[in-house]
Amino acid sequence: MSIPDSNRLERLSGMLKRRGIILPAFEIHGGSKGLYDFGPVGGRLRNRVNQNWIDHWTSMGNITEISCPTVTPFEVLEASGHVGEFSDFMVDCIACGEASRADTLLEDFHSNPDALSKSDLQELFSKHNPKCPSCDSSDWSDITAQNLMFNTTIGAGKSGRQGFLRPETAQGMFTSFQTLYRHNRERLPFGAIQVGKGYRNEISPRQGMIRLREFNMAELEYFIDPEEDSNHDFSKWNISLFKLIPEDGKEISISLEKAVNNGIIRDSTVGFFMGLTYDFLIKVGINPDKLRFRQHESDEMAHYAMDCWDVEIHGSYGWVECVGIAHRGCYDLEAHEKYTGKTLRARREFSEPRNIDIDHWTIDGSVAGPAFRSLAGAVKSAVENLSIDTEFPCHIQLDSGESVTVEPQHIKRNQRTEVVTGEWFIPHVVEPAFGIDRIIWHILDHAYDEVSKGDDLYTVLRLNQSIAPVDYCVFPLFEKDGMGEIAKSINTNLCSKLGIISMYDSSGSIGRRYARADEIGVPFCITVDHQSLEDNTVTLRDRDTGQQKRVSIDSL
Amino acid sequence: MSIPDSNRLERLSGMLKRRGIILPAFEIHGGSKGLYDFGPVGGRLRNRVNQNWIDHWTSMGNITEISCPTVTPFEVLEASGHVGEFSDFMVDCIACGEASRADTLLEDFHSNPDALSKSDLQELFSKHNPKCPSCDSSDWSDITAQNLMFNTTIGAGKSGRQGFLRPETAQGMFTSFQTLYRHNRERLPFGAIQVGKGYRNEISPRQGMIRLREFNMAELEYFIDPEEDSNHDFSKWNISLFKLIPEDGKEISISLEKAVNNGIIRDSTVGFFMGLTYDFLIKVGINPDKLRFRQHESDEMAHYAMDCWDVEIHGSYGWVECVGIAHRGCYDLEAHEKYTGKTLRARREFSEPRNIDIDHWTIDGSVAGPAFRSLAGAVKSAVENLSIDTEFPCHIQLDSGESVTVEPQHIKRNQRTEVVTGEWFIPHVVEPAFGIDRIIWHILDHAYDEVSKGDDLYTVLRLNQSIAPVDYCVFPLFEKDGMGEIAKSINTNLCSKLGIISMYDSSGSIGRRYARADEIGVPFCITVDHQSLEDNTVTLRDRDTGQQKRVSIDSL
Repeated sequence: MSIPDSNRLERLSGMLKRRGIILPAFEIHGGSKGLYDFGPVGGRLRNRVNQNWIDHWTSMGNITEISCPTVTPFEVLEASGHVGEFSDFMVDCIACGEASRADTLLEDFHSNPDALSKSDLQELFSKHNPKCPSCDSSDWSDITAQNLMFNTTIGAGKSGRQGFLRPETAQGMFTSFQTLYRHNRERLPFGAIQVGKGYRNEISPRQGMIRLREFNMAELEYFIDPEEDSNHDFSKWNISLFKLIPEDGKEISISLEKAVNNGIIRDSTVGFFMGLTYDFLIKVGINPDKLRFRQHESDEMAHYAMDCWDVEIHGSYGWVECVGIAHRGCYDLEAHEKYTGKTLRARREFSEPRNIDIDHWTIDGSVAGPAFRSLAGAVKSAVENLSIDTEFPCHIQLDSGESVTVEPQHIKRNQRTEVVTGEWFIPHVVEPAFGIDRIIWHILDHAYDEVSKGDDLYTVLRLNQSIAPVDYCVFPLFEKDGMGEIAKSINTNLCSKLGIISMYDSSGSIGRRYARADEIGVPFCITVDHQSLEDNTVTLRDRDTGQQKRVSIDSL
Repeated sequence: MSIPDSNRLERLSGMLKRRGIILPAFEIHGGSKGLYDFGPVGGRLRNRVNQNWIDHWTSMGNITEISCPTVTPFEVLEASGHVGEFSDFMVDCIACGEASRADTLLEDFHSNPDALSKSDLQELFSKHNPKCPSCDSSDWSDITAQNLMFNTTIGAGKSGRQGFLRPETAQGMFTSFQTLYRHNRERLPFGAIQVGKGYRNEISPRQGMIRLREFNMAELEYFIDPEEDSNHDFSKWNISLFKLIPEDGKEISISLEKAVNNGIIRDSTVGFFMGLTYDFLIKVGINPDKLRFRQHESDEMAHYAMDCWDVEIHGSYGWVECVGIAHRGCYDLEAHEKYTGKTLRARREFSEPRNIDIDHWTIDGSVAGPAFRSLAGAVKSAVENLSIDTEFPCHIQLDSGESVTVEPQHIKRNQRTEVVTGEWFIPHVVEPAFGIDRIIWHILDHAYDEVSKGDDLYTVLRLNQSIAPVDYCVFPLFEKDGMGEIAKSINTNLCSKLGIISMYDSSGSIGRRYARADEIGVPFCITVDHQSLEDNTVTLRDRDTGQQKRVSIDSL
């Protein structure tokens, strides 16, 4: 029987810490808010979730993994808009010096303070003058916008340049577009994925793994031609209804295909990735009943986004956004193109060649060349931009600021029909972005099962086998009579198999050892007993059913 | 026939960039020295090398993976010694502002300027006054020590604290010692591994992947009891001789076992990890003829290290240190213990209980308690530290500064024999530390094979199958007549298999497609031709032998 309880979160966090799954980092040095360790059990859980995520996408055949630096030059994040806009509003307590987010302090006085402008926040703040959560004083600095990127300097001395720790992995994929396009033999659609650290220098982190200063994230950028039909097949999701909260806020249960066809999901590629995201989350152990998709309202969505859905997962902290699936249009590539002057485009061939009429002025090189010498190139560009109605002689100003007079003998009219077979365009991007730590938190939260055994609370972590951090535990009933040797040898053999982790445990009763294994979600326990000495068999116990069967050692 | 050539490095780097294996990061924004991308081909190579490394160690059975933050509070790196000592000597060019390493500029004038003190460097520098590599001027600032950690601030406003990006992954494993010890059921030896980013804000990075500002590293901390026999089995390495350069600088070829028994390798656990490191490097494709172990000279080794061997690998940049295997004694855990006051120890049980005679003064609580009230605890500590010859009454000064007089009636003598069954001690650590980028560079360098085909240069990347970034390429001879459909379906099926990456390629002649696949080291190419339409077979071509055989599609 499962026991609902208000202290469940505390017991779960305690277990995660005690058993080396997830724990506050650098604790012997006093710790540091918003920084967590994956311990000797959690380390492999994290790795397996990451690898599952990578395999999930690369199995599509047109998605490849890349890996870019976390230290990022100023220019990249200025181009992306993060230098200007990636900030929260902060207030400093004058009494104790503690910094707080202004919107968080106003949660009791407004339904959505996160959406307020700086001046509206300041007005509300002055009206209610909340207390400092750290010292209870109400003496505050003015509200300031605080950029949330970790700042650093690349290089030393006078040649040092400003840089940041990346706030997301996405920018490295946009700046790699040309390489990706070449790798994919210049054919859309294709995707790039990246798994790695992201950083957000939160003003005041709370809620454990939900709001971290350094986090594990995994993003996919899927580049598409907006004029090409996507033709996604939704039929495999028709067996289940998806819980959606469209922009109007009213939850519905509907098949994915219907939601796309009805226009509730505005773009079919977004819908397709909602389906694939659902598949991934179920595969790693998220409870499908605790998962819903929420559409961003238009004032919540970035101005360039064409549609955006969050995957929210329910757990000890309520509904938490764990994945965002956004149609970002051509915003990102265009931003880097404008900033750098480099071309970040794909080519689209027309189904039939098109005739394009060309009619403009250009220079007659044999006359204009000697006349304008080193300026001839600039004159040519300027002349070719003149209206066909221009009369010569004509004074024109070059980009360099100089003025020249163009005489009739310098020019000629270029009038012809050209056959064009295609055009260059900026691809659109659909971006599913996953917060791996939040997903791992909810995997653990959903798997954590407390059952009463007599007067005791017995806990089992019902993790899926594909992500369980320890695959087997091997116990000798006693260490004497050679049982210890056999158990150790089974353990060594299991560990030597690729991708298998086994632990040897010989202390305490078998019941206690089962309990220790169940607590960290080991799917199978193997016990070596007296019979093993006689017939080379062991008992294999299943975590979830508790059932034991005797199997030959050689079959393990 | 392989062609030796002085421009090989340039051609190799060009290929790596063109094919999306390894390339300078953020190039559309002008790039940033010392930062590299793993592109759509290199991304999976990096992942596979990392996972191979993890599997290599976890298969030992007592080694677990953990993952700690890269952002690290000041205190942790002050305790470890990095704040004080992790620096290079720098000079600024007054003319152009470019920073340079002082020792690098003096390489023509001294055999090992890296080992010079600041004053010796300054003297040599003033004598030779080298030219700035950037502007040829010789007008220099004084030499200063520049800490090489990337600096940042954790948190905002007045509550912000100084932090750094970790220079190595090791410290997170030391600060996690208590968790690791508990997880391993308080039994030594055990190890922790971590794979992730390390950072070193190089003054002036050179040599591509060899000297990066942000790098992929992989470290193992193996905790041992120095009083326990290690009993390592070296027999499996007896089939090969290891190239060692001991402290005296003279290269020898010797079996690992002999080198340990002769005391050339001073510690048997260090020798054992040299063997395991050799196995890993061969497995991922390092050429054993281009690998040697070099022992640190005593003035090169940290003062606390008991032995240290570098694995050097030979490639386009000469011999390069790629792994360091150091016996670090109890230095690291002791440093964190001293700094934090927390216990980072393991327990050692004596083979037989020992009797320990106890004889010291203590207080008589019933009298001293009322007499000293709140000071009684401090008085007790002070009295227990007094020599047994002390005569009472006696004036003592407490840690708090206060003085008290202790009368004979306040005290009593504590004289007894205690049975002690064990003791707490600081474990020793053997640390193999791997530079993953340098290893990947040399894997590529050793695998890169240029052969002449007629007048052309043909390149093949002879990567081991276990780390090849693309497992298969699938080609339709032509896309028409259904061959394209069959090839696409084979490609999709292969991609959907766990851990398999396949690429579809239909452009150009089959010979050109083979060449493209060979260049990035794809082990097998599959071609769908006219016969496939009739009998459901395809040709399977082996990269290294060039041999083709017909196999059934169902057997792929």
